[in-house]
Amino acid sequence: MLEELKKQVLAANKQLVTNKLVIYTWGNVSAIDRSRGLVVIKPSGVSYDDMSAEDMVVVDTDGNIVEGDKRPSVDLPTHLQLYRSFEGIGGVVHTHSTFATAFAQAGLDIQPFGTTHADYFFGAIPCTRKLTRDEVENDYELNTGRVIAETFANKNYLDVPAAIVGGHGLFAWGQDAPTAVYNATVAERCAEMAYLTCTLKDAPPIDDYMLEKHYLRKHGKNATYGQVKDK
Amino acid sequence: MLEELKKQVLAANKQLVTNKLVIYTWGNVSAIDRSRGLVVIKPSGVSYDDMSAEDMVVVDTDGNIVEGDKRPSVDLPTHLQLYRSFEGIGGVVHTHSTFATAFAQAGLDIQPFGTTHADYFFGAIPCTRKLTRDEVENDYELNTGRVIAETFANKNYLDVPAAIVGGHGLFAWGQDAPTAVYNATVAERCAEMAYLTCTLKDAPPIDDYMLEKHYLRKHGKNATYGQVKDK
Amino acid sequence: MLEELKKQVLAANKQLVTNKLVIYTWGNVSAIDRSRGLVVIKPSGVSYDDMSAEDMVVVDTDGNIVEGDKRPSVDLPTHLQLYRSFEGIGGVVHTHSTFATAFAQAGLDIQPFGTTHADYFFGAIPCTRKLTRDEVENDYELNTGRVIAETFANKNYLDVPAAIVGGHGLFAWGQDAPTAVYNATVAERCAEMAYLTCTLKDAPPIDDYMLEKHYLRKHGKNATYGQVKDK
Amino acid sequence: MLEELKKQVLAANKQLVTNKLVIYTWGNVSAIDRSRGLVVIKPSGVSYDDMSAEDMVVVDTDGNIVEGDKRPSVDLPTHLQLYRSFEGIGGVVHTHSTFATAFAQAGLDIQPFGTTHADYFFGAIPCTRKLTRDEVENDYELNTGRVIAETFANKNYLDVPAAIVGGHGLFAWGQDAPTAVYNATVAERCAEMAYLTCTLKDAPPIDDYMLEKHYLRKHGKNATYGQVKDK
Repeated sequence: MLEELKKQVLAANKQLVTNKLVIYTWGNVSAIDRSRGLVVIKPSGVSYDDMSAEDMVVVDTDGNIVEGDKRPSVDLPTHLQLYRSFEGIGGVVHTHSTFATAFAQAGLDIQPFGTTHADYFFGAIPCTRKLTRDEVENDYELNTGRVIAETFANKNYLDVPAAIVGGHGLFAWGQDAPTAVYNATVAERCAEMAYLTCTLKDAPPIDDYMLEKHYLRKHGKNATYGQVKDK
Repeated sequence: MLEELKKQVLAANKQLVTNKLVIYTWGNVSAIDRSRGLVVIKPSGVSYDDMSAEDMVVVDTDGNIVEGDKRPSVDLPTHLQLYRSFEGIGGVVHTHSTFATAFAQAGLDIQPFGTTHADYFFGAIPCTRKLTRDEVENDYELNTGRVIAETFANKNYLDVPAAIVGGHGLFAWGQDAPTAVYNATVAERCAEMAYLTCTLKDAPPIDDYMLEKHYLRKHGKNATYGQVKDK
Repeated sequence: MLEELKKQVLAANKQLVTNKLVIYTWGNVSAIDRSRGLVVIKPSGVSYDDMSAEDMVVVDTDGNIVEGDKRPSVDLPTHLQLYRSFEGIGGVVHTHSTFATAFAQAGLDIQPFGTTHADYFFGAIPCTRKLTRDEVENDYELNTGRVIAETFANKNYLDVPAAIVGGHGLFAWGQDAPTAVYNATVAERCAEMAYLTCTLKDAPPIDDYMLEKHYLRKHGKNATYGQVKDK
Repeated sequence: MLEELKKQVLAANKQLVTNKLVIYTWGNVSAIDRSRGLVVIKPSGVSYDDMSAEDMVVVDTDGNIVEGDKRPSVDLPTHLQLYRSFEGIGGVVHTHSTFATAFAQAGLDIQPFGTTHADYFFGAIPCTRKLTRDEVENDYELNTGRVIAETFANKNYLDVPAAIVGGHGLFAWGQDAPTAVYNATVAERCAEMAYLTCTLKDAPPIDDYMLEKHYLRKHGKNATYGQVKDK
């Protein structure tokens, strides 16, 4: 079942390697079929090179395995919580990519220092608070999803399709798995540029009107970037 | 029409990927045929891998499409303004290359800390002022070109064939598209070395007589570098 | 003799190049066959490209050559001391990988700033004290092993399978040679992330309960990560 | 004439690209045949990809072209001065490799912070003083060689086979061209590690007895590193 979605999730997982966002098994991608209430996710601890579409694990939205003979990623409850909290998304990525993780470790938001960031994220990529002892000791992966959702209580998750979890790493999302990987890749590059900017000078973020200009050139009904799409 | 120029612009755009100046669609190259008053530029939002020479867009100097079924880069008005302001140039590049963009985000000129820089740029690669709200909200891309030209009011654009736009990224130019890409590549490497220098020590630029010596070894009628060219 | 182990040690040495942990001859891997009391190690100063399994040197636990016509790595006495002090290990790696070596040169532990580190190391990767003049002038390589063992007097060498030697570089170990290389690769990546974190902000290590959660997700009898292994 | 030496110099120049020490034409290698008083050097401004052994330029020790139809590197007088001042060397390399150049631009010696450095350089890789206006305006390339020699007035050029020229870049040397490239590659990696060390902490160089131990493990009549060579 869900053969096309499994292939897409497999390809998105392998893209993490190509885009240098992971080494070994340090990341995972999932996608949801909302009409069926099913999620496809990477199996836990399996090397990207060795994975085939059949290794992808299909679970329901409570995390019960529906198809597949492997255990799903331990981060599955985080993915499921994001699908619950952010109803407009179709794919989720988790990575420990180097620069985004450095900001997560420092407990700092990735500020929009320039238009590269503004082209994709309508504001800072926020760093969540650290989880409490209780949140870590009980239902840790679920609580990781909840603390991301909490961070977006007053923020549009479609306008800023990524977050870093304090002391941990990056989560990104999008309409489907390939878009989520795209956003993760851009977030990592923005984090690298933000790192270089911060270590050069105590610089302010770009002005709001510049942020708006660039974000709205690429997003929304008045976007002017790219080719006209069929509707 | 302009088949040779389209091939050259296509190759120059692909060179941005080879030289690691862009990921995804984060850059664009154009060239001008001044005798015909026509500019060839990358189509907007199209992947470098998928582009062919036929995808290049031909526009007149007012930006009207003369040939091609794709929309040109949204940065076209910036390119056109540079061709208007800098009459001696034949090619323009825009990138968000990592180190040059970090300086743009920090609002700092890329100082000539050494002879590598002096071999190609006869002084700092200047960082423009930030655009005002009005300049961003009306004719933004055109104003980006104007603020670059303004920065060169008292500076020779052939002696310093690149600028970084505050909060944005790099523009470079040259006699043709390949030379513009060459200059963008050198600017990025100089930005990297300048970053490392700045974070090691609060170092001064090189002395003027050293800047002159190196720049004039490679440029002008008394240049001693390279092989004797046919004239 | 020990043909399989020689092949494994050869492959592990070549993996150092693939994983960008060494250039030229800057690293070495060994493995021990504890039932026979024999160690297989890289020959000294031989390029990774040129090595074959027959070039691996077999020594006894006193360092006497048992098989092979090449001289063993000069670091052999360090490896032997680690096998003596850490009875549960089967493979040892030494490298001068860039970021881990920078921490060694700065004389700083690699702190567990995030969960990437906690997934593999149950606490800081410690930096040993510098060796004294006497320790360097007499039995230097042996004393390098002793100072590592001394650093683990109150620390579990299986929970933290790596150390950096002050002013020198990285040593990592594991149940066998491939695991030791894996741990060295992870240590280098953690060092890179720790470097970026430190230079962004004076950040604290992650909380103990987070360190425990992540380490124990992957290690010990209650681990939930990965696929169920045959026993 | 000198066909073997030309091939070796060609290969050494191409190695600069493989070892990521140069882009475009940013470096050059030469070698000397002392018995004939002839030097073979890269032609000026020619791309590494396009070069063949026949393009190498043969000059006498006064810089007169003896064979070849191309102009030699503009840095030739620096190479010739180094061959005059350092009688025991057979090859010279000049590059603008990134980290070494950053130290040159900051005007800082590359300190021996660890044993990686000590394995190859018996002390700091010194940064020369900047050249005066007069030295730059008259016989600049010759004076670049002289200021390097001046820096080694009280230092053994065989024990520290590299220098960085203030505001410029790296020169390295050795018994032949391949050894010079090897030393340049190691110097660049040591510069990278020194950069990371310096930006982590205000660290001291390693102790003298450690420097001696490592340098003498690899050099001199009591060296224990590597395989026994035929004599």
